[in-house]
Amino acid sequence: MSSAKCVTIGRLKFGGGAPIRVESMLKSRLESVGDCMDELDTLKRAGCELVRVAFPGESLSANLRELAEKSEVPLMADIHFNHRLALAAIDSGCASVRINPGNMSGGDGLMSVLSAAKASGAVIRIGANAGSLSNRQMESRGKDRAAALVAAVEEQLIPLLDMGFEDVIMSAKSSSVPETVRANFILAQRYPFPLHIGITEAGAGTDGAVKSASGLGALIAQGIGDTMRVSLTGESREEVEVAYSILRSMEVRRRGVNLISCPGCGRRHVDVGELVRQVKSLLTRDVPDGLTVAVMGCEVNGPKEAAAADIGIAGTQRGFVMFKKGSMAASGDLSKLEEILKKELAGSIPTI
Amino acid sequence: MSSAKCVTIGRLKFGGGAPIRVESMLKSRLESVGDCMDELDTLKRAGCELVRVAFPGESLSANLRELAEKSEVPLMADIHFNHRLALAAIDSGCASVRINPGNMSGGDGLMSVLSAAKASGAVIRIGANAGSLSNRQMESRGKDRAAALVAAVEEQLIPLLDMGFEDVIMSAKSSSVPETVRANFILAQRYPFPLHIGITEAGAGTDGAVKSASGLGALIAQGIGDTMRVSLTGESREEVEVAYSILRSMEVRRRGVNLISCPGCGRRHVDVGELVRQVKSLLTRDVPDGLTVAVMGCEVNGPKEAAAADIGIAGTQRGFVMFKKGSMAASGDLSKLEEILKKELAGSIPTI
Repeated sequence: MSSAKCVTIGRLKFGGGAPIRVESMLKSRLESVGDCMDELDTLKRAGCELVRVAFPGESLSANLRELAEKSEVPLMADIHFNHRLALAAIDSGCASVRINPGNMSGGDGLMSVLSAAKASGAVIRIGANAGSLSNRQMESRGKDRAAALVAAVEEQLIPLLDMGFEDVIMSAKSSSVPETVRANFILAQRYPFPLHIGITEAGAGTDGAVKSASGLGALIAQGIGDTMRVSLTGESREEVEVAYSILRSMEVRRRGVNLISCPGCGRRHVDVGELVRQVKSLLTRDVPDGLTVAVMGCEVNGPKEAAAADIGIAGTQRGFVMFKKGSMAASGDLSKLEEILKKELAGSIPTI
Repeated sequence: MSSAKCVTIGRLKFGGGAPIRVESMLKSRLESVGDCMDELDTLKRAGCELVRVAFPGESLSANLRELAEKSEVPLMADIHFNHRLALAAIDSGCASVRINPGNMSGGDGLMSVLSAAKASGAVIRIGANAGSLSNRQMESRGKDRAAALVAAVEEQLIPLLDMGFEDVIMSAKSSSVPETVRANFILAQRYPFPLHIGITEAGAGTDGAVKSASGLGALIAQGIGDTMRVSLTGESREEVEVAYSILRSMEVRRRGVNLISCPGCGRRHVDVGELVRQVKSLLTRDVPDGLTVAVMGCEVNGPKEAAAADIGIAGTQRGFVMFKKGSMAASGDLSKLEEILKKELAGSIPTI
């Protein structure tokens, strides 16, 4: 489904049927260009395609310009309360800015930002967070937070459309999954612009990843979402890794290896957890994206389910059997696994 | 939405509007009753409501009977290829059995199992895994695996309905999220029986949790699913924890604390990750289920977003501010946080 319209940031298309993009936000402060560049480099290697950076003051314009010049990943400057900051960000070479049109010093300020964006080709992201809804916005929608979120996004969107600006990405976020899902359902039905999706302040670790995956999975299953950020307390690299894990699960992007492994019930012949760790350690970055590797503990479902994978490994009473695209490729005792698997991985080709 | 019909296992209702139940499966072997009881106890404490146990041979009937008598969580015996095992499981006191009606030694064998189940009140789970689809099933649906999964479930369901047995839970599982989601959409539209949902062989760690959450979030958002198992390579307790994390995210069950925390951008005044760890360590099991605690790094979105939580903590330039249901409750430097938070937690009441 995706959005009907697409926008271009850097050399990448967002929306209009392009792959769902993966974003993050710099945790380093703009005061240190070195720290920011290190983080940008890490994010680039993890597969990040757009990085948001807080731009709190014009005194940091030179730093922002240096980042925009050096970064291989396009930047989106995050602007609060000042149209001059938005102008400075665009002038510094940022491919996109996130603004609240209501905070751009009135219509003239907003128009100057839109003119500068049009001239440079910069994309503007607008959007609302449930945490920033005003009492007026809440009351106007009978305290329905999802509806109020939609109304808050529309308050930002309409002025841009009225001024003839359509290179827009919209977002509606909440730390509540059902609120976020419902608001985005409504926006996707009403407007053709690309949607940035995410669950705000999802938390840390597995709980944060689960919360993001629950909500983004629900949206992506309905074809909603053109670019996403997994918002985690932790390293920004983790946000990108979890984002790709979600996209891989939904089978819409295939970066990384799709590792399938059984839970290891009473039928198992091998320690599945240990076998998974062993296999994972052999799946280095030069293994092709999208490869499906299955690790199964027994011969009841094992060989059959493992047979559908590019490479399948199932425990048997005598050791293991290995399948390659459904055909038995090797078997032996577990001491031979590493050698044989390495050989198979070297020649493997993904199926999705 | 949930299923129209409900069944009762032990003292718990499944389907018909009951809360979505949380299941797991014993990784201990039935040969050791001691190991099984330890695992059952751990699962019980984690909130598990139904435990499946592989029952591979009649020689283990006495062990199964002992577990069924001692376990505080109802058991579902997992039966392969033998109606006598199903009869033995029901006779041993299992509140439910998982069978494949096609493997019950013909119509007479199946009828004897259904009669025994009716007499004892045992619920029967049937269902198909994508890994076990036959070539015939695949070909009959033009190699559409989701449609073939549905057909495979129907092949198991119809004989039971023909024999007048309706205390049924259905399942259709695949290690592919889109296949699982699509098959369950179809089943939920066609049949009124409770659905057991899950992604098979989801993997290990965060990736496994993310895959499960992506798929189960997509189903639960559409009101589909009455009982669930998160199938992870790892400890069975983890499966239950991730299941509740998903249910909490979807706001359909509230076991545990709903911890919200911001990603910690360039605006932060405190180390959010460190603050989250500190707060988490204070959230012991006697804190009420469903409590929402927000941890925010700064005063831009922080106090406002944290204010919606039961307890909110936001970093400031001078230390922290704490909110209790929207009202400022305390502030101070970070050294005071532990003492003040403990006091607040002692008197806290959940809002969801």
